[in-house]
Amino acid sequence: MTRRSRLNVTLWILAAALPFHAACSRQEPRDQKAVTAAINDVWSRYTSSLNSGDIDGWMSLWADSGVQMPPNEPPVIGKEAIRARNKGVLDRFAFSMTITNHEVGVGGDWAFARGTFAATLTPKAGGAAVSIDGKYMTILARQPDGSWKIHRDIFNSNK
Amino acid sequence: MTRRSRLNVTLWILAAALPFHAACSRQEPRDQKAVTAAINDVWSRYTSSLNSGDIDGWMSLWADSGVQMPPNEPPVIGKEAIRARNKGVLDRFAFSMTITNHEVGVGGDWAFARGTFAATLTPKAGGAAVSIDGKYMTILARQPDGSWKIHRDIFNSNK
Repeated sequence: MTRRSRLNVTLWILAAALPFHAACSRQEPRDQKAVTAAINDVWSRYTSSLNSGDIDGWMSLWADSGVQMPPNEPPVIGKEAIRARNKGVLDRFAFSMTITNHEVGVGGDWAFARGTFAATLTPKAGGAAVSIDGKYMTILARQPDGSWKIHRDIFNSNK
Repeated sequence: MTRRSRLNVTLWILAAALPFHAACSRQEPRDQKAVTAAINDVWSRYTSSLNSGDIDGWMSLWADSGVQMPPNEPPVIGKEAIRARNKGVLDRFAFSMTITNHEVGVGGDWAFARGTFAATLTPKAGGAAVSIDGKYMTILARQPDGSWKIHRDIFNSNK
């Protein structure tokens, strides 16, 4: 081989390997770390928006394809239904909520998150506050801009 | 280039591209179809083992890393704890359960499944049967042999 043809060979190998590598590098450990940080930021905004009664801020965390699965009611399918259901809750209750995320798993453009939450819901019309001690599992979807949004969310009580 | 060196170049390109392609092809549409079939088979064995009171058959569907998150109790962490908890339920109740899987999402060696289930639990000691209408979300992990096992499972009631 001449020096010129060796260079061509090298370029061909790079050209063949690069597109595959770009797609696969999403599952590298450094992606795991970045995705975990991004999802912890989602949970931070999840609680701060609920605790301040900000339905728009909370809705901005959801993908258009979102499905919420609260206990003791049917699945809530799509952003319009999710907004209506949760605006109803925020209209009636002041929230004080914390989330402790226990793990994040990343697979391509999906991630799952699992953890526990504690919430005190104080009725705005007066009456006794309700305390919830629960656990959740959430699927988040990587968006074209690299951010992560909530795609599926299910939770239940620990008690 | 000689014919021999052209052949070497071709082999090099294939050698460089193949490992990446093997890892990435897991997210191809045909993988989606195969994984959906594999997970539907998991659900089929999930219900048949519970309905026949076969705790060993049911446990064989779980990954060693399994965490089960039933409603109104703390998370059940690890296969030993999952066996003890669910053997206790099978000792007390005869199951009649069906699962309707609504969707499967695949990301690398993870998949999530979401759906609904219906179960009638008849107390073996006598007394009224309990009917459950619920929904679930499950993370399954691809095993080294290509099979899928339950890694995380959470469920709650629709009523």
